[in-house]
Amino acid sequence: MSISFALTSGLAISRYDSMEQAFLQFLANQKQTLPTDGLGIGDDAAVLAWPADSKLVVCTDLISDETDFHLAEVTPQQIGRKALAINLSDIAAMACQPVGALLTLLLPGGEASLELAQGIYQGAAKLGEQFNCPIIGGDTNSWPGKVAVSITVLGRCPFAKPLLRQGAQPGDAIFVTGSLGGSILGHHLDFIPRVDEALALTQTCGLTAGMDISDGISIDLPRLCKQSSVGAEIDVRQLPLTAAAQQLSQKSGKPVWWHGLNDGEDFELLFTVPAADADQLLAQWTNATPITRIGTIRPERELTMLGDDGTRQPLLPEGFSH
Amino acid sequence: MSISFALTSGLAISRYDSMEQAFLQFLANQKQTLPTDGLGIGDDAAVLAWPADSKLVVCTDLISDETDFHLAEVTPQQIGRKALAINLSDIAAMACQPVGALLTLLLPGGEASLELAQGIYQGAAKLGEQFNCPIIGGDTNSWPGKVAVSITVLGRCPFAKPLLRQGAQPGDAIFVTGSLGGSILGHHLDFIPRVDEALALTQTCGLTAGMDISDGISIDLPRLCKQSSVGAEIDVRQLPLTAAAQQLSQKSGKPVWWHGLNDGEDFELLFTVPAADADQLLAQWTNATPITRIGTIRPERELTMLGDDGTRQPLLPEGFSH
Repeated sequence: MSISFALTSGLAISRYDSMEQAFLQFLANQKQTLPTDGLGIGDDAAVLAWPADSKLVVCTDLISDETDFHLAEVTPQQIGRKALAINLSDIAAMACQPVGALLTLLLPGGEASLELAQGIYQGAAKLGEQFNCPIIGGDTNSWPGKVAVSITVLGRCPFAKPLLRQGAQPGDAIFVTGSLGGSILGHHLDFIPRVDEALALTQTCGLTAGMDISDGISIDLPRLCKQSSVGAEIDVRQLPLTAAAQQLSQKSGKPVWWHGLNDGEDFELLFTVPAADADQLLAQWTNATPITRIGTIRPERELTMLGDDGTRQPLLPEGFSH
Repeated sequence: MSISFALTSGLAISRYDSMEQAFLQFLANQKQTLPTDGLGIGDDAAVLAWPADSKLVVCTDLISDETDFHLAEVTPQQIGRKALAINLSDIAAMACQPVGALLTLLLPGGEASLELAQGIYQGAAKLGEQFNCPIIGGDTNSWPGKVAVSITVLGRCPFAKPLLRQGAQPGDAIFVTGSLGGSILGHHLDFIPRVDEALALTQTCGLTAGMDISDGISIDLPRLCKQSSVGAEIDVRQLPLTAAAQQLSQKSGKPVWWHGLNDGEDFELLFTVPAADADQLLAQWTNATPITRIGTIRPERELTMLGDDGTRQPLLPEGFSH
């Protein structure tokens, strides 16, 4: 069973199962501010007007039961929120503004899934409202399997070009937003995508490169370096660390900084700034989300770190893969 | 496990499972003509330049094992082709040009899935090439479940506005492209999305409304009528019918026209034209895909049909729901 919807959408008769019928009725009753120009009501695709010369960015990410969450341990709202949040984080990584999202649900069939579908929608729509990113369409499917949620987000680049992984120069200062580590203790479900921070940073100074930290700095920084054809050195003593990283460290026996470097799903921004601008950025930055300088881009294409005793050693990709 | 890719994409190290690594390597080696402006290489989202004042349409559809196909009975290429084709059919339904697609895979983990992933990609990419719709990004996921494929397609409206379900007027002639019925015997895997036909029709005459037939005319025509606040009458003797509908009729004992009216997944266009233009359209239409007039839009908001004996009777929504 499958129903596509463009949430610009009136609803017509059909003979889908009663769960899907009821979910479509629920969707039709939701109030959202839609970015469309009023075309496409009830049609096969959602329609968006697009401003002249404004670049479009688009990303998609799926989360599924037993891989990204355990259905018994989370609310449907948390699932929907996370599915949208990880995509908004990708839009933030490009320093772009989200415009709208498509929500695809894969659900066990039957009446019991209605509450699940509604909750997932609500979790996504509530976060979307905070970021001017309404759910503009999607597809609802029943099948004899577990829950998966796929979201695609469209975004608009308000600057001449989006923030990319390429562009970091030797000597650039490496920064992160927020603090790192221990996301698995709960933060992976309630993190705030750094959309506003990315836009503010881009307006404040010339970022040379950037991305979001989804798999941990030890995996993600090498990706940025590869695209920029540079290397980097991190000072682990400078890493901003969460209380959760501290907690995990007590259980794991590994240093707190290890968790800051290697735990996944922080969804903070990792970005580079010309060395000459770094101090000024720190002085000017008044946003509630802190930024911290954690290292330096280097010309040699290798990744190193200064350990907690100040000795230089290889930075190994030990991050979380999810 | 999950890897997003923007297929503008270089690839960086990571520690995903070897199937996903190998699939990403495979993707990196694929040659496609990408509609990007060269930004976004290896980034968190794909980047597209968008022409001034050109409306964007976006749709998404998922197909899954045991619901839309049976893994043992189809090739991976057929799965990928169908997943893209149903989305291109939605773009055709809006009389728009596809621009690019995002491909999300949900696969059983392990080495065996690599061939599956590659085949699905190949099936989608090959069809995409025929429609100038490259795979510009996506997300690959392993999980302890069955196969599902979700595709999102972005399209561009080359006209002042897209073709919509609303706009049909009493007296308009109702047309379909191609022929109808029996898709389940194989056509649902190899149908040609009517993108070119929709664009040609829109250039030839003023279509007042349109959509694609995914669930059968008896379900889809009421949707068009509802959006247009009209009713309709179909003459079942005019329905263009496939050989497959004939075959099914012999098994089911139902009339051939019943299958043309009610079988799903034809993915033909259903559209309306002012009565005054209908004959001219038929005279001018030289496209290889035939078009057939099958009925008339009526002011009374009810759906009727002229049966094979010419008697008027209610048109009941007995179509295929999938």
